[in-house]
Amino acid sequence: MGILPFVAELGLIDHHCHGVLRTDSTREEFESLLLEADAVSPLGGSFFDSALGFAVRRWCAPLLDLPRHASAEAYLERRNSLHITEVSRTFLMASGIHTFLVDGGFQPDRLLSGAELGSLAGVVSHDVVRLEHLAEELRPSVSPSEFLDAVRSRLASSSAVGAKSVAAYRVGLDLPGARPVDSDVVLAVEAWSSGRLVSPVVITWLAWEALDAGLPLQFHVGYGDSDIDLHRCDPSLLTPFLRATASLGVPVLLLHNYPFHRQAGYLAQVFPHVFCDLGLATHGLGHQAPRVLAEALEIVPYGKFLFSSDAFGLPELYYLGALLFRRALSEFLSDGLRRDAFLEEDAHRIARLIASDNAARVYKL
Amino acid sequence: MGILPFVAELGLIDHHCHGVLRTDSTREEFESLLLEADAVSPLGGSFFDSALGFAVRRWCAPLLDLPRHASAEAYLERRNSLHITEVSRTFLMASGIHTFLVDGGFQPDRLLSGAELGSLAGVVSHDVVRLEHLAEELRPSVSPSEFLDAVRSRLASSSAVGAKSVAAYRVGLDLPGARPVDSDVVLAVEAWSSGRLVSPVVITWLAWEALDAGLPLQFHVGYGDSDIDLHRCDPSLLTPFLRATASLGVPVLLLHNYPFHRQAGYLAQVFPHVFCDLGLATHGLGHQAPRVLAEALEIVPYGKFLFSSDAFGLPELYYLGALLFRRALSEFLSDGLRRDAFLEEDAHRIARLIASDNAARVYKL
Amino acid sequence: MGILPFVAELGLIDHHCHGVLRTDSTREEFESLLLEADAVSPLGGSFFDSALGFAVRRWCAPLLDLPRHASAEAYLERRNSLHITEVSRTFLMASGIHTFLVDGGFQPDRLLSGAELGSLAGVVSHDVVRLEHLAEELRPSVSPSEFLDAVRSRLASSSAVGAKSVAAYRVGLDLPGARPVDSDVVLAVEAWSSGRLVSPVVITWLAWEALDAGLPLQFHVGYGDSDIDLHRCDPSLLTPFLRATASLGVPVLLLHNYPFHRQAGYLAQVFPHVFCDLGLATHGLGHQAPRVLAEALEIVPYGKFLFSSDAFGLPELYYLGALLFRRALSEFLSDGLRRDAFLEEDAHRIARLIASDNAARVYKL
Repeated sequence: MGILPFVAELGLIDHHCHGVLRTDSTREEFESLLLEADAVSPLGGSFFDSALGFAVRRWCAPLLDLPRHASAEAYLERRNSLHITEVSRTFLMASGIHTFLVDGGFQPDRLLSGAELGSLAGVVSHDVVRLEHLAEELRPSVSPSEFLDAVRSRLASSSAVGAKSVAAYRVGLDLPGARPVDSDVVLAVEAWSSGRLVSPVVITWLAWEALDAGLPLQFHVGYGDSDIDLHRCDPSLLTPFLRATASLGVPVLLLHNYPFHRQAGYLAQVFPHVFCDLGLATHGLGHQAPRVLAEALEIVPYGKFLFSSDAFGLPELYYLGALLFRRALSEFLSDGLRRDAFLEEDAHRIARLIASDNAARVYKL
Repeated sequence: MGILPFVAELGLIDHHCHGVLRTDSTREEFESLLLEADAVSPLGGSFFDSALGFAVRRWCAPLLDLPRHASAEAYLERRNSLHITEVSRTFLMASGIHTFLVDGGFQPDRLLSGAELGSLAGVVSHDVVRLEHLAEELRPSVSPSEFLDAVRSRLASSSAVGAKSVAAYRVGLDLPGARPVDSDVVLAVEAWSSGRLVSPVVITWLAWEALDAGLPLQFHVGYGDSDIDLHRCDPSLLTPFLRATASLGVPVLLLHNYPFHRQAGYLAQVFPHVFCDLGLATHGLGHQAPRVLAEALEIVPYGKFLFSSDAFGLPELYYLGALLFRRALSEFLSDGLRRDAFLEEDAHRIARLIASDNAARVYKL
Repeated sequence: MGILPFVAELGLIDHHCHGVLRTDSTREEFESLLLEADAVSPLGGSFFDSALGFAVRRWCAPLLDLPRHASAEAYLERRNSLHITEVSRTFLMASGIHTFLVDGGFQPDRLLSGAELGSLAGVVSHDVVRLEHLAEELRPSVSPSEFLDAVRSRLASSSAVGAKSVAAYRVGLDLPGARPVDSDVVLAVEAWSSGRLVSPVVITWLAWEALDAGLPLQFHVGYGDSDIDLHRCDPSLLTPFLRATASLGVPVLLLHNYPFHRQAGYLAQVFPHVFCDLGLATHGLGHQAPRVLAEALEIVPYGKFLFSSDAFGLPELYYLGALLFRRALSEFLSDGLRRDAFLEEDAHRIARLIASDNAARVYKL
């Protein structure tokens, strides 16, 4: 159950992550950033007693010169004795990720930007524009009738390599199967004077505009924090939207997907422009990531699956996202080789596709 | 694939079960109580040809002094040659369950009460009040305007350690995210003169009242008999209710959950007051329980998962629920140890949390 | 991980498949028939880079006298050097399927009929009447008022051993729980002058008529091509229909089911007339079929599960459907034997039930 040598050496493109925290964390902040809960519950005990908590103790402790399985207390004490920049650099560089695609539109004040993240790790980074954040930033400074052109202009001139929709968090994924007409969008923008964007019309329109601008479009799908209603984040709810946008030929990327990763694989198989990943779940599942990655790879063509960490805030998560992905992919490929399902050269090609080639093709990197 | 010694010796709190039958069973009754069907179908053959049927022959036969894998005929003949009380005591005591939390509100005439169950097994038992049953009992004897106070008074004076809602069976789990106002409840009670309670308003109100009374609240989720519409029993449908009740700080427990156990784990992770289990499925899956328990433990913090059997009627089910849970938990922990995911002392702590510590904390036992 | 000898020798009844292509295929046609996509996407790469693509290279190449894992190019070149009839006969005969139940109502011009398929393979075949196809054929030649009797007459005189509904593709599976009254059906037929049938009333009525005619009724469920909305193909949506039809005593068969195979197992357990399979997924998953077959067999009584290939067009798919099913069933049974879950004679009986006995009983073959 080690990592196959050729998987260990794969350079990774992390096609979806966020920035690391600018500052140290208290134990409470650290624990709450480990999982998707807002805070640790006294009813439920420490989040170190979770698959991910144990993975931190097992895998991250040695990078801070502690023994494997160091206690949570020893780990946090050691961590806080170091400068956060040093901690972040250590984990980012150990991840073997050579390119980050960074959604910088969530809690930007608290986190390093994409450029800062790349610079800290000494690797390449690209921005992914978060559509709802862009719209919320623009809204106060333009009239409803100007809003549409302002968004279009920003997308057309953006240096981002992709766009991201958090429709899942705002309205769920059952977006309509038709492009909203401009006049309806203007009316919806008029009704939304400022603040959090929750208009299905505007959110759907933003997704279409991103595709029109040729930007590969990421959707948050499935597992996330308590803001979502999980059953409204089933990716198959996106089917009408996917059917309507297939002919545009611009990639749509389904992020995370757990526990709907089989549904995501189905969509990636049947729609030519759809791709998927297992970000967040890969590290969130700790030592159980291999089974779920294997499930995610059941029916998806190997040219349609990408690596991402969805790491946020804690540098440990980039490292664990990459490490646990490598371990899970190794186990998947070893199992296939043991079953004589494919040749070793095929295993290498599958690994390269998923680690970076698919992302390079999709985002034209 | 044996049971780890420290798991074999765990005393269990069964936080959700029913009583055993008062009387012997015919073969037809026995088979129909094995699975969730109303009756055996001549189209489909014997229910002994199922994962659970084989588990009875493999594991229960030796406790009745028969060889492993005794035939169904031999098993039932031997069983009926013994007094049902002796059979029940044998299986209950062999389970290693030291505390039963008993929902006595379904078919009470046919089953031992919680107190009788505990007495027969020589262990502790506590009652869990079934809300819809309580309401249906009270309804004929009070006016609609008296009904609310009557329920409140019963809950306030109850000796039960928790409450249970079968909203799943009556209206599905998409309960509203707001507390019903009393005047609406009175109207709904007026419209319901007697009999089976199927009013969403009243059922939702009962759930809130249980929490107000400080009673940990169990919900039937997922897998059950043919009365349910399974897609309406997805626990993520409860999200608005869970979001609205989080601040009360009273535990909510998602029972069974199969095949939505991953969704349940997500909810238990993100909501501070939510817990889950895999009751019913553990024994229903027979020798395949280990994989599903491992799935159920993917993202749930280990302080949020409980043991239950959901055994009903047949004493074999308490024993198999406990035994197959021990085997599945052992396999989960052995796999973690084999992967060096955690230390042996961590494995012990995880086991104790799930076997009894979490239940003791949640129900204040 | 080989095939258990008694599983290797099982004669199979394929209770749901289509015909093979009449003609040779280009590479593009071949790839698009491998998976459920309409066409290969330049964005996503070759479909040979998929679980099923690798299974073709591994398992089918040797039957065409090529080495295991021959390249896609070598495989297609060799295949096209042979007559398609020879290729088809080779794979059909190697499958060990002795009886085909053929849905001939989809793309009949392009495919061999059921009788032709059986004749080519030298085995028995029976027809399954595709209800929507039958209705669409009849509609132009009869008035709305004649339509009902025309359908009834065709079903009553049909030589088919079963009927199939593609409600999943037309209206989703949430059919009403009551039989449509004739006058409503006539109105719905009036509103549908010709062409593709998408009336929920007519589609539901057809399903009832098939059961009235005593024809076991197959439903497409879950995984299929991009025409479906996957979340509308969850078999638990059929619950009201299944509850309403249980008393008729005519079998209802849930086909494919992936990724809702656990839901299907639940329905097959609790409803006396419901059966399920894992067709399409068995070969679509390639070397990962064993895990998913094991999942599908978690709670379904073994008298309620059937083999089918759902093969369509490519003769390789019948062979792979049967081969990968045998491998997956072997692994399931070996695992059970290794865990001492049942005796070897039980394993044999389970295998025979699933391979052919259940189908023979359901379809009265």
